Amino acid sequence: MKALPRPIIVVNFKTYPEASGPNSIALSKICESVAEETGVEIAVAPPMTDLAVVAQSVGIPVLSQHVDDVKAGGTTGHVPLESVTACGAKGTLLNHSERRMRIADIENLVCRCRNAGLSTIVCTNDIGVTRACSALEPDFVAIEPPELIGGDISVTTANPAVVKDSVGVARKICSGIGVLCGAGVKNGGDVAKALELGTDGVLLASGVVKAGDPRKVLLDLADGLRC
Amino acid sequence: MKALPRPIIVVNFKTYPEASGPNSIALSKICESVAEETGVEIAVAPPMTDLAVVAQSVGIPVLSQHVDDVKAGGTTGHVPLESVTACGAKGTLLNHSERRMRIADIENLVCRCRNAGLSTIVCTNDIGVTRACSALEPDFVAIEPPELIGGDISVTTANPAVVKDSVGVARKICSGIGVLCGAGVKNGGDVAKALELGTDGVLLASGVVKAGDPRKVLLDLADGLRC
Amino acid sequence: MKALPRPIIVVNFKTYPEASGPNSIALSKICESVAEETGVEIAVAPPMTDLAVVAQSVGIPVLSQHVDDVKAGGTTGHVPLESVTACGAKGTLLNHSERRMRIADIENLVCRCRNAGLSTIVCTNDIGVTRACSALEPDFVAIEPPELIGGDISVTTANPAVVKDSVGVARKICSGIGVLCGAGVKNGGDVAKALELGTDGVLLASGVVKAGDPRKVLLDLADGLRC
Amino acid sequence: MKALPRPIIVVNFKTYPEASGPNSIALSKICESVAEETGVEIAVAPPMTDLAVVAQSVGIPVLSQHVDDVKAGGTTGHVPLESVTACGAKGTLLNHSERRMRIADIENLVCRCRNAGLSTIVCTNDIGVTRACSALEPDFVAIEPPELIGGDISVTTANPAVVKDSVGVARKICSGIGVLCGAGVKNGGDVAKALELGTDGVLLASGVVKAGDPRKVLLDLADGLRC
Repeated sequence: MKALPRPIIVVNFKTYPEASGPNSIALSKICESVAEETGVEIAVAPPMTDLAVVAQSVGIPVLSQHVDDVKAGGTTGHVPLESVTACGAKGTLLNHSERRMRIADIENLVCRCRNAGLSTIVCTNDIGVTRACSALEPDFVAIEPPELIGGDISVTTANPAVVKDSVGVARKICSGIGVLCGAGVKNGGDVAKALELGTDGVLLASGVVKAGDPRKVLLDLADGLRC
Repeated sequence: MKALPRPIIVVNFKTYPEASGPNSIALSKICESVAEETGVEIAVAPPMTDLAVVAQSVGIPVLSQHVDDVKAGGTTGHVPLESVTACGAKGTLLNHSERRMRIADIENLVCRCRNAGLSTIVCTNDIGVTRACSALEPDFVAIEPPELIGGDISVTTANPAVVKDSVGVARKICSGIGVLCGAGVKNGGDVAKALELGTDGVLLASGVVKAGDPRKVLLDLADGLRC
Repeated sequence: MKALPRPIIVVNFKTYPEASGPNSIALSKICESVAEETGVEIAVAPPMTDLAVVAQSVGIPVLSQHVDDVKAGGTTGHVPLESVTACGAKGTLLNHSERRMRIADIENLVCRCRNAGLSTIVCTNDIGVTRACSALEPDFVAIEPPELIGGDISVTTANPAVVKDSVGVARKICSGIGVLCGAGVKNGGDVAKALELGTDGVLLASGVVKAGDPRKVLLDLADGLRC
Repeated sequence: MKALPRPIIVVNFKTYPEASGPNSIALSKICESVAEETGVEIAVAPPMTDLAVVAQSVGIPVLSQHVDDVKAGGTTGHVPLESVTACGAKGTLLNHSERRMRIADIENLVCRCRNAGLSTIVCTNDIGVTRACSALEPDFVAIEPPELIGGDISVTTANPAVVKDSVGVARKICSGIGVLCGAGVKNGGDVAKALELGTDGVLLASGVVKAGDPRKVLLDLADGLRC
């Protein structure tokens, strides 16, 4: 399986009702059509329960929001990576601020995902954790200061230094690693600024999911990525 | 939404590869066709990531294997009950031995599921926990001694007293509650014995999922339920 | 080991600095002297790290705030019940609202503590959970509505019905069980009211720990218990 | 507070009965007397509930086995670092293989401990995690391959490469960091080998705690450290 392309916009649907069940498929199709029209790479991370149905419905990369470090089989109610690959998903977020993980589990899953051909995006909350997680050599780290998540000001405006420095420490430890940033990202200007700060794109959620017109927002974000 | 019918056979797919991704849909369709042919009620609990796709594919009741006691929205990587209802599932297992839950969360979810029209099956490991969970008044309790799960001898043979006594304590505390039993259940004789001991059916996994011919096993189980 | 006496005042030190390290010993001695002077039964639950030192320092019952359901031995950083008994403690809180536990673990620990001669006080948050936990037959349940914990109004004033009804459901399921109440309890009047509502005493924390003069507060609480 | 000295032998008592309650004090005193006689630095990590009593009883450094990333106050049943400092302990293990932690919590605690004057020893399971944890700049990392813990063959014999390479990656990322190794360490020869491989000492448990004559074992270990 080929790695996730760069630069990229990753849309995390979280568990918002606006992006759950049938809405999950609808929003994924909007993302797909914007990707096709603009040539910009967009990936989606739908609610866990919608992973297979979304992966069947669109051709853009579909990611899991989380994987449990358990084996397939007698692990009722968990999500082993085998569930994710069986669905046809291309990768997974790990250690999202709303689903923090133990470091030994992150490392184990980064290795297991690599062997299974799944891309990994490890979320981090500050420069120290970005540095630590980069040492595990995932495909991407995504820096998201928790205090800015879901807020109105983009991390690229509120704290450009944390983005720039995260890119620096990540690439110093693992030269080929992809770096995303997130938290408060809402428009094309935020995306353009993210690229200018050295990242490979953005990870965002409410900015798209809760938008009155997600298609319009996505087109604007795509514009930012093409600058 | 109407309650799960009784008696019933509930097939937990766990996270077995034989029942994940496309296999999950295929096995659900086999369950559906056996239910239609025999008139016996069968419900399926596919891997978390396949919940929506299975609910779209079959007309028999589809259950979640677990629900997290979190709100819909900023809960990346979790499964709130809103994810489950949005998928079209009819209910959920709670507190499976492979995914034990905190008592306050079980109570909260039993209430929230009731309000949302989702049926609840709370798994228990012995008579004491059956008694405690029955006090929370879920739709069903399912007694499964952990030491017998995945084994070759049915709980109805290995420990009929735990089944019979569980039925007794559950109904004493909550008169209308449904009671299932599980662990090692493999054939129609086991199901017939479960009903004879006073239960409303069985919860089973590997006996169907890992069978060479699941259809044949399901037909035999259905026979046991109709005796 | 003999059971905790009734009626009783249980002072949970939580992890307040005012009751940690040397302060933990000092406050325990105040509790002990008030118990001796008034003849009222008082038990203390110091911070986990102070359990042994407090148990060595006072003659009144010392309780653990929590026990992990693990075995003694290769369980670094956990607190098995063997750690608690080795300290000379007489019992433990379980399932405190700040340390909720899985139901199977509560049941297992209630049994193991009984065999080890440790008294158990299982905390609950509402009538449903009180009912469920009483079915596990611990020595005591302690009803503490979380929304009132640490507040200014005693549960006995804010919601006397939840106290009275908890006593009712607990004793219906397990006739000999002790029932405490807590949350916002601050003075002798609150304690007297708790007894009037049918309880065997109170569980409180900040009302004593953060008081300017804990000795004075304890004397007043003791007065309430003797009415 | 001054940092832990190097080289050092750290004895983790885990929750072994042989090192709990009064035994915890007795074993700490043996460690102290061997440290005094030999001039070798020895630190002890007693069961959580014995932390204060041991810190009162001996002059050698006493460490916590774990700290929870919670605030002091309304955190019943947890161990905030304020509990540890109030006891007079000098530092803490973090992320022991029997108590794995989330990476964001490890980072947060390493910072908070540094500010509070507590030394940190972050346990790791392999080279990748050693590298990641070193990026968080604790005082020490301690590499312990889980498959060798509690076994009969020292990590220095079974897998000297993992020790040597851990030292290499740790010091490359954080030049001044201390490095310990553990798992199966039993005698002075193992300790001498650990130093030869570039470490600053060893972390061990059963080799001392379950020894028929712990004093004799400690004297032998101390010999290894002085070579």
